[in-house]
Amino acid sequence: MATITILGAGYMGTALAVIAADEGHRVRLWGTWLDDDLVQPVLRGEEHPRLKMKLSDGVEAFLHPELSTALQGAEAVVCAVNSDGVVPVFEKAAPHLPDGGPLMSITKGFLPDGDGKIRRISEVVKASILAPAGKDRPWVAIGGPCKAMEVARRVPTAVLYASDEDAAARDACAQWLECDYYTITRTDDLAGLETCSAFKNAYATASGLCDGLQLRGHPEMYNAKAMLFSQAINEIAAVVQAMGGERAMAHGLAGVGDLHVTAAAGRNRAYGERVGLGEAPDQVAARMLEAGELTEGYPALKTGWELLQQLVAEGKLALADFPLLAALHSIVYQGADVAETLAGLRVRG
Amino acid sequence: MATITILGAGYMGTALAVIAADEGHRVRLWGTWLDDDLVQPVLRGEEHPRLKMKLSDGVEAFLHPELSTALQGAEAVVCAVNSDGVVPVFEKAAPHLPDGGPLMSITKGFLPDGDGKIRRISEVVKASILAPAGKDRPWVAIGGPCKAMEVARRVPTAVLYASDEDAAARDACAQWLECDYYTITRTDDLAGLETCSAFKNAYATASGLCDGLQLRGHPEMYNAKAMLFSQAINEIAAVVQAMGGERAMAHGLAGVGDLHVTAAAGRNRAYGERVGLGEAPDQVAARMLEAGELTEGYPALKTGWELLQQLVAEGKLALADFPLLAALHSIVYQGADVAETLAGLRVRG
Repeated sequence: MATITILGAGYMGTALAVIAADEGHRVRLWGTWLDDDLVQPVLRGEEHPRLKMKLSDGVEAFLHPELSTALQGAEAVVCAVNSDGVVPVFEKAAPHLPDGGPLMSITKGFLPDGDGKIRRISEVVKASILAPAGKDRPWVAIGGPCKAMEVARRVPTAVLYASDEDAAARDACAQWLECDYYTITRTDDLAGLETCSAFKNAYATASGLCDGLQLRGHPEMYNAKAMLFSQAINEIAAVVQAMGGERAMAHGLAGVGDLHVTAAAGRNRAYGERVGLGEAPDQVAARMLEAGELTEGYPALKTGWELLQQLVAEGKLALADFPLLAALHSIVYQGADVAETLAGLRVRG
Repeated sequence: MATITILGAGYMGTALAVIAADEGHRVRLWGTWLDDDLVQPVLRGEEHPRLKMKLSDGVEAFLHPELSTALQGAEAVVCAVNSDGVVPVFEKAAPHLPDGGPLMSITKGFLPDGDGKIRRISEVVKASILAPAGKDRPWVAIGGPCKAMEVARRVPTAVLYASDEDAAARDACAQWLECDYYTITRTDDLAGLETCSAFKNAYATASGLCDGLQLRGHPEMYNAKAMLFSQAINEIAAVVQAMGGERAMAHGLAGVGDLHVTAAAGRNRAYGERVGLGEAPDQVAARMLEAGELTEGYPALKTGWELLQQLVAEGKLALADFPLLAALHSIVYQGADVAETLAGLRVRG
């Protein structure tokens, strides 16, 4: 039994709390300053407002002023905030992090480094926050096809845990949390996993665009959706390799699997659908955010595109190999027509 | 302009006739002895009963007694019958095949050879029918995510054309048929493409099983569907390699793409859904066949399983690496419980 502190009380943080409690750990679920409305009902013994279920007694909830208490003596800490929250949360948490034990993270995306370069989240947080605070610790990224709501309901789910520096720490995390409905693949390819997790949000919008076109009268386009899905995997594999990961990561649960679940059922698909229906891309993002439905695909497309330019400038990739990312970026950020742009794509592979 | 004869007037043969006519070729669409109800309306100038559209004047339709006329002087012949029909059709067609030009094929599946071994369709047809008749010719397999109805409606579609013996013949086929809505990737990996095309039908049932479980009250299981999709690609890639193809074939349009379209919208998904809902697997297959909806996934699971045993016996593969195919086979052919069997799967990758 371990003491596990989860930072972020949204969908995914709370779902991990469910798993950890099922496995008999002492679980502390800390909500950020944006999570008060989620934590307060839990403190009153009511359902978690997003997961729509009561948490077991094994989960202790904390409001944001109690960060240091929540972290005290934790054997593992899980970062479960979104990519916007990861820097401010780690800046607040760093002084209170215990001295040992791994940092797990389900946060997906890339971040600008101090020098303006875009890097993987683990690189930025470790170099700019943890190391300066003397709190650099093994980073274990969690990826793969995992909708929080389903894993919280114990639907069979398979994920990956990755560390490129400490296999023992990663394996300890996996041993703490693996159970009959939650299967964990251990991997050293942290770069590959983080890259897949970030890019699938961007590419999942493609499937939604097709759905939106259909809803406004275009014929069924399963052929096109499949072609775009296949091309997305092809492009993700190339970026993974350029980022120092293994192409195989894109062909397994982290790429094929995670893109599948996101394109089938995620908020990024819903975002794409509204854009396909004709709403202005920036307004869809704003309206969904107002409604509490953050669409990571919208910023991920921008950051992904910038990262691609960076990798092209470094001579690691050729822009011509990314017709789909270019098409999605031009639709979402440059006002290109959805139907025309997708019809103009030539996919080979 | 070429004269192209298409054998089989079902969905896919007729869709290819639409493309070929669009590209200005002389197109002959020959229906088998099972296709009279499809060809007669076309001969009367009415809609094709399956595609629900009138064919252009560039398409000349032939009833089955006119096989030799349909084949006379053809520069290319397309086999567009299902895997049950391919041997009888080629046995009848062989004497009338013109002396030059490629044989294209969209038929998916494997066939037992004379010695009882299961082989790729092109191997069996060439060795047991074409070569003995002195009509062995370059075989060009067509694969990739392509629902006939959509390509006939000119929805953007990307496919692969493969020949392992005659790149020039393959490229001629691709040049005849490529157009703005139908993009063709040329490849030498015939073994890989045929293997992907055959196995995706078997694996597509997995997605339907999940849909069926949901329809009878199980919670949403997008995580599980994504995990099964990823595992299917993993298993297909391993078989492709054992069959002499390149694993990469499974990671592109032929594997990821074709499984995507089949699992999302095909008859094999529908088949799986009914099994997931609780109907007996053999009865679903029989009832769908009666209704004119052939489910290639049902026999493909059996043949795929036998092929796997053969490859294991040859020391090329290990059975333990195929938990999903084993699960699907046990559900469809051995009466295993759907929910229990899927919940018992442990997917890593």
